Amino acid sequence: MILTQQLDRMDRAATASDLYEFSAKLYPICRSITGNGLRQTLRMIQERIPLELQEVPSGTQVLDWTVPKEWNISDAYVKDSSGRRIVDFQKCNLHVVNYSIPVHSRMPLSELKKHIHTLPEHPDWIPYRTSYYKEDWGFCLSYAHAVSLPEGEYEVCIDSSLGDGHLSYGELLLPGTSNHEILISCHVCHPSLANDNLSGITVATRLAQLVAKTTHRYSYRFLFIPGTIGAITWLSRNPESSKRIRHGLVLTCIGDRNSFHYKKSRQENAEIDRAVAHVLKHSDPSAKLLPFSPYGYDERQFCSPGFNLPVGCLMRSVWGTFPEYHTSMDNLHLLDPESLIGSLKVCASIFDLLESNRRFKNLAPFGEPQLGRRGLYPSMGGISPEKELHARLWTLNLSDGNHSLLDIAERSGLPFDIVCESAELLFQKGLLATAD
Amino acid sequence: MILTQQLDRMDRAATASDLYEFSAKLYPICRSITGNGLRQTLRMIQERIPLELQEVPSGTQVLDWTVPKEWNISDAYVKDSSGRRIVDFQKCNLHVVNYSIPVHSRMPLSELKKHIHTLPEHPDWIPYRTSYYKEDWGFCLSYAHAVSLPEGEYEVCIDSSLGDGHLSYGELLLPGTSNHEILISCHVCHPSLANDNLSGITVATRLAQLVAKTTHRYSYRFLFIPGTIGAITWLSRNPESSKRIRHGLVLTCIGDRNSFHYKKSRQENAEIDRAVAHVLKHSDPSAKLLPFSPYGYDERQFCSPGFNLPVGCLMRSVWGTFPEYHTSMDNLHLLDPESLIGSLKVCASIFDLLESNRRFKNLAPFGEPQLGRRGLYPSMGGISPEKELHARLWTLNLSDGNHSLLDIAERSGLPFDIVCESAELLFQKGLLATAD
Amino acid sequence: MILTQQLDRMDRAATASDLYEFSAKLYPICRSITGNGLRQTLRMIQERIPLELQEVPSGTQVLDWTVPKEWNISDAYVKDSSGRRIVDFQKCNLHVVNYSIPVHSRMPLSELKKHIHTLPEHPDWIPYRTSYYKEDWGFCLSYAHAVSLPEGEYEVCIDSSLGDGHLSYGELLLPGTSNHEILISCHVCHPSLANDNLSGITVATRLAQLVAKTTHRYSYRFLFIPGTIGAITWLSRNPESSKRIRHGLVLTCIGDRNSFHYKKSRQENAEIDRAVAHVLKHSDPSAKLLPFSPYGYDERQFCSPGFNLPVGCLMRSVWGTFPEYHTSMDNLHLLDPESLIGSLKVCASIFDLLESNRRFKNLAPFGEPQLGRRGLYPSMGGISPEKELHARLWTLNLSDGNHSLLDIAERSGLPFDIVCESAELLFQKGLLATAD
Repeated sequence: MILTQQLDRMDRAATASDLYEFSAKLYPICRSITGNGLRQTLRMIQERIPLELQEVPSGTQVLDWTVPKEWNISDAYVKDSSGRRIVDFQKCNLHVVNYSIPVHSRMPLSELKKHIHTLPEHPDWIPYRTSYYKEDWGFCLSYAHAVSLPEGEYEVCIDSSLGDGHLSYGELLLPGTSNHEILISCHVCHPSLANDNLSGITVATRLAQLVAKTTHRYSYRFLFIPGTIGAITWLSRNPESSKRIRHGLVLTCIGDRNSFHYKKSRQENAEIDRAVAHVLKHSDPSAKLLPFSPYGYDERQFCSPGFNLPVGCLMRSVWGTFPEYHTSMDNLHLLDPESLIGSLKVCASIFDLLESNRRFKNLAPFGEPQLGRRGLYPSMGGISPEKELHARLWTLNLSDGNHSLLDIAERSGLPFDIVCESAELLFQKGLLATAD
Repeated sequence: MILTQQLDRMDRAATASDLYEFSAKLYPICRSITGNGLRQTLRMIQERIPLELQEVPSGTQVLDWTVPKEWNISDAYVKDSSGRRIVDFQKCNLHVVNYSIPVHSRMPLSELKKHIHTLPEHPDWIPYRTSYYKEDWGFCLSYAHAVSLPEGEYEVCIDSSLGDGHLSYGELLLPGTSNHEILISCHVCHPSLANDNLSGITVATRLAQLVAKTTHRYSYRFLFIPGTIGAITWLSRNPESSKRIRHGLVLTCIGDRNSFHYKKSRQENAEIDRAVAHVLKHSDPSAKLLPFSPYGYDERQFCSPGFNLPVGCLMRSVWGTFPEYHTSMDNLHLLDPESLIGSLKVCASIFDLLESNRRFKNLAPFGEPQLGRRGLYPSMGGISPEKELHARLWTLNLSDGNHSLLDIAERSGLPFDIVCESAELLFQKGLLATAD
Repeated sequence: MILTQQLDRMDRAATASDLYEFSAKLYPICRSITGNGLRQTLRMIQERIPLELQEVPSGTQVLDWTVPKEWNISDAYVKDSSGRRIVDFQKCNLHVVNYSIPVHSRMPLSELKKHIHTLPEHPDWIPYRTSYYKEDWGFCLSYAHAVSLPEGEYEVCIDSSLGDGHLSYGELLLPGTSNHEILISCHVCHPSLANDNLSGITVATRLAQLVAKTTHRYSYRFLFIPGTIGAITWLSRNPESSKRIRHGLVLTCIGDRNSFHYKKSRQENAEIDRAVAHVLKHSDPSAKLLPFSPYGYDERQFCSPGFNLPVGCLMRSVWGTFPEYHTSMDNLHLLDPESLIGSLKVCASIFDLLESNRRFKNLAPFGEPQLGRRGLYPSMGGISPEKELHARLWTLNLSDGNHSLLDIAERSGLPFDIVCESAELLFQKGLLATAD
């Protein structure tokens, strides 16, 4: 239980606050699936972990897709007839449809309105819209603002560029004693949206810091990639690495105050699915497991039938279902420092479980070994001597080389860490041998 | 979805009315497991579909059974001492125990009563009784009628014959591009009983007309046979054909106003069982699935262990459980034209599903293919663009050559036809290849 | 259904009373895991069934354990300063911690109290305590008694011996036509405790008497053994016999008024588990099935991973969960003659089921055989003609050589004995052949 122990040793309040502050620091940047906002974000992550930055040229063929042109933007506004900026990109980058082509012209309200997006059901919120693969431009406004615009001529300017360049992403491999990999992936392409997905970026970054300080069996691969095209690009360029992935998690929307939701991998009963289910069952009674579906975030790429990797998606609120999703209300107020550290801890528990989930073989399998003469009857002064005794008996009983410690935890109903401690103790006492 | 489309193109009211009228036309005939009433019925079906009539001689050994003597009846009555017909076969053929041997004699009430069957729990209803394999005679009366008979001498006459002859049944094979068969079987041995089984005969006849007008993959075999002995006889004479049966339905009691009941085949999870379950789930929320049992109608023969064919039984009310079952109240009033056409439509949907239930292989299985550049993002003006998109993504995700479209529909929760349309579209766009 | 039939032929009240009386006769003896109390108990069982007594020397290595020294006790007491026996082993053998080493000395109350065990939550009950593997001595008193002891000097005496000797156990093999064995095991090491486990001893003894009077397929092995060390010893000395065990039951706590509880074997779906579940379902609607766990009675040894035998544990109240467990209140009042005979009957039904649970092959598997001409339509005068007919049809339908009669009973929902009678009748009529 290396990662959780490390986490427990840290100052909880300070860590929670640091997670929140990192999200806050990244919040103002206008990110997209390419461009300098994305690059700046990756460099800020690099200040914390030794991320490798990858740059893939526009036009590169990646699986069934092509890396798009690079998009950059320096300013955008709508001015009324008096020359006042009534819509200002500098105040909120959501105002511009992400990937808008450059435009600078004057037009009447009727023409402008064709390019305005609103959310009538939430009249004070600004929606988030993109147009990656169709060249177009537009502005996003609150509905109340849009309907208040008087007739007249407006000056419209989007000072953007769309041209040959690169798609950027960040990658960090922390090698373990085995080359079997655990993948942690999060998307870094959203502009000023907090839960989706600064929460994922923040938790993944901190997780990498934690893992880096430990000795571990698995190799850990962290990906900070633009959604969809980033996952496609990485998979296209790393066919060998993808085969080494044994377990994976996509992290998104894990900073709000909701309880956990875990969407299973396509395999639905992979070790990662069972590990997350076990950890959540013992840590968050309101957590819910969701079946796999081929829409969502990048798990859909990792779980495409040609790869079929055991990668699930860990969330608190589920993308697309909470009202603030993809609006200006997904801001820093939606994030909760306690939720961020709680998510970090759940991830740590999941990876601790996977690290420790071995198979053993009982070396005295005929009858019950005499625990008493080995000092293996838990002393009555322990925290829960009955649980400890049960864990030892279950571990001995099921350690026939076929059952993993997670199998034993599931069948016995005991928490994994108690089963794991039992196995370590029984191993030390010479009653168990490793079997995988 | 060829059959349902055809059906949808027809005038619904006219079709419903035609189904009802055909039942009404067949209603008065005194059918049995052999004889001229049965033959006349088959000929009336033959006026609509090119049924082959089979005649199997009495005494023929069929599996563990022997084809019985042929039974015919021209008249029957009981006259009171004044010579008045107080029981008259001409008015209701249920009055005579089916397969009664000839009798003509006078007897006191006490003697007559030994041969009278009633239903005390429904004092105004006439029961339906048979004595196929034990030579006997009898009359069926309403209980009220029977208890009102005064003492006295009665003249009893059953002008029937029981002798060497034939067992008749009708068979129609509509060849498809494959010689794998779908079996539709219904029993034609009941006299004036409407739901059991003129409803089955009527729907099966119309279904054959529909199928005949289409191109289809499967060959369809329609059997119009006397219950039990007819199925035994057909199976005995057609060992090779029976091996070609891939799916089958026995149709009975499908004309009343109840919701559907489907009794699964002995295999319980055969493709036909899953297909019916899927169609009913999406068309009749009150429908119920029943486990297989070795009693019922001819599915018990098709599902005997030596054959173990995937044949289930589709009903509305379940034989033996509705009060009118096997009584004079199972008459034309119990039939509902809307129910008949509803049953026809459900059968059409089931066969459409089986026809279309293929396996495909995603030709771009690594990552998600880019739908946008192929025009595969459903336009927002569609009926349910989100469902369509989900269907496409699910079909791509699960088309690994192992999952059938029904597997995909079941796992995604989407209706089969939407999945099927997606597969066709993706196939046209070159993203899928057939895999079976 | 040989055993239950025999039981039904016996005088129920007399049998119940005899079971109770045998328990009562054994009750006063001070048993332990070795010693003369155990030996005397085995000899009293020997008066009823031809038990073989085994004696295994102290120090013998048995699997991971060593046979302990033999313990005997003739007297024990605590006298107050006036010389009055205020604690007297002769009145209740629970007063002495089982396996106490000899002691004879005077001591103040403060010193004595270190050796006194009580149950504060039940102030009038005397607890049962042991110290088999740690040399120690002690007295068990009611809490009320213990707190009432005045300050002063006490004479303490335990006239016991602990030295080289033997571990005793009893074994009876009743050979059947096959050498496949059914194991019935009960522990005989508890002093004056009634439900745990004189009830098990009493029922097992009577069961052996019943089995001895019948012809049977399985060989039955009855073990009367000290808990844990007895099972370990038997398994250690009988590796070949243990391999012949096909089904097994540990009997304990089956004399009280509670409904049945059955703890499944480690295999959880072994034939014994299904047989017990079936018998209880049809005889005790309140019965509960419990999952396997590696703590409890000797099933934990039989179900250790090296043996993994299909041995479950049949109880009424579950050890460790009823308040009287391991206290002076587990006395003869807790036993109910009706419960004892009820437990005997359930065991008889379970073994009858296992004896009869064969596989058959339908010799007329194509279509349904004609029951009528073989007189196999149940006469309407029978007890439940419909059930009988259904049982015959189910047995014919599923007798394909793969389904056992228990499989058929489970799938049809019919009681095993009706299915079994059907199979016998169909076998006599030449419609079934044995298939295992």
